Amino acid sequence: MISVVLLGAGNVASHLFKAFFASEKIEVKQWYNRSLKTIDKYKAQVLVTDNLSTLVKADIYILAVSDDAIETLSKQLPFENRLVVHTSGSTSLYAVDMKQKRGVFYPLQTFSKAADLDFKNVPICIEALNKKDLPILKQLAEAIGSISHKVNSDQRQALHLAAVFVNNFTNQLYRMAHEITEMNGAEFDILKPLIKETAHKIESLSPYLAQTGPALRNDKKTIKRHLKQLENEQHKAVYELLTKSIKKTHGIR
Amino acid sequence: MISVVLLGAGNVASHLFKAFFASEKIEVKQWYNRSLKTIDKYKAQVLVTDNLSTLVKADIYILAVSDDAIETLSKQLPFENRLVVHTSGSTSLYAVDMKQKRGVFYPLQTFSKAADLDFKNVPICIEALNKKDLPILKQLAEAIGSISHKVNSDQRQALHLAAVFVNNFTNQLYRMAHEITEMNGAEFDILKPLIKETAHKIESLSPYLAQTGPALRNDKKTIKRHLKQLENEQHKAVYELLTKSIKKTHGIR
Repeated sequence: MISVVLLGAGNVASHLFKAFFASEKIEVKQWYNRSLKTIDKYKAQVLVTDNLSTLVKADIYILAVSDDAIETLSKQLPFENRLVVHTSGSTSLYAVDMKQKRGVFYPLQTFSKAADLDFKNVPICIEALNKKDLPILKQLAEAIGSISHKVNSDQRQALHLAAVFVNNFTNQLYRMAHEITEMNGAEFDILKPLIKETAHKIESLSPYLAQTGPALRNDKKTIKRHLKQLENEQHKAVYELLTKSIKKTHGIR
Repeated sequence: MISVVLLGAGNVASHLFKAFFASEKIEVKQWYNRSLKTIDKYKAQVLVTDNLSTLVKADIYILAVSDDAIETLSKQLPFENRLVVHTSGSTSLYAVDMKQKRGVFYPLQTFSKAADLDFKNVPICIEALNKKDLPILKQLAEAIGSISHKVNSDQRQALHLAAVFVNNFTNQLYRMAHEITEMNGAEFDILKPLIKETAHKIESLSPYLAQTGPALRNDKKTIKRHLKQLENEQHKAVYELLTKSIKKTHGIR
């Protein structure tokens, strides 16, 4: 049984709480938030508090708070030499106060408040200043069904940056496609199987090998027609830049 | 039973042949290609030919050839007033010779030679100059398990353009993520569950509502750090342009 104290009440914290609470291998000893309002409804399931001085003893303290709050909050912890991890993709391991045993427990996934998330589909990047602290972080990930990956800070920060490309930027391309179809009275929904297949394809092919389309074929006629079709200047700029990028990747002049 | 003659031997033609051949409701009467080499291996299953003057009678003639070849090939057909459709997303319905009953049968999906494709996941956009020809195109789509969508040329061309965004451009973002992770010794594979979830999320949420991340939060500190992390100028340009685009979509200055 791994005992944890959870700190914070945002998306990541809430999803972690649900997963921890559901696991037979984890005991959530306490849930802290600076305001009780958000977590008060869980008080039948877990000890809740807004007072750091009341924090109980646990194997792991999880700071699931905003990047900017990690350093300050970790400094205020009224104990030392315990395993304290943050859940941020981009924040340094050293943001956790040096009084503690420092680590990172970064779930690499997109969290929305509404949708339930199966942690089987959430890889967790773990990091610890002291190697001896890695096994318990690995066990914590496994206890909620996740696969853990031991990374260093550079790797974690590269993954966080790459995640912006495959998640936020990809989603913005979906948005543009939505705008393009709507402007022409076509249904965005017709594109959904293609969206799924595009994501599915790279399970077995590298993105390099999976590429197709007018830029790769250097089909100037289609590219020209597409650019003419696009009325929105921003859509046009994205079309031009990504076409150029595909050509460069594949050595097409 | 719908009888078809298939013309062309590229990716789309090959996938269509397999699906048509497997359907009990379709008879592939003949397969034409200008060179027999590619289709010769199918001669035990279907009549193959490289001679247009030998084309047999069928309900539908399907020109699954490159965009540029549609017009020329359709002019060479040695009959008139039969239903002739092309499979292109961007080519005009009028590229089919006016001697024929003209239509479009455009499967909106990414086709690779290697991977088998279930036509259940391939929406087919159908179009016909004469309304009376629509039902048989719809039946043809249904006979291979596809859902058909009646569109006009503007809608079809908008879908084709939007498909470049959600397929080719999205795939190029995956490629960039691959480069970013590799440059830092991180595993691209760790991103795959996120890639899947990003595609999955818009099943129930619009791309507008599904957006998250530093651009949406206007998190200047993270954006600045990400830009500093990016060494490749093209990655940087894409990061800047798509961040700007997300901000514009969501009214963030």
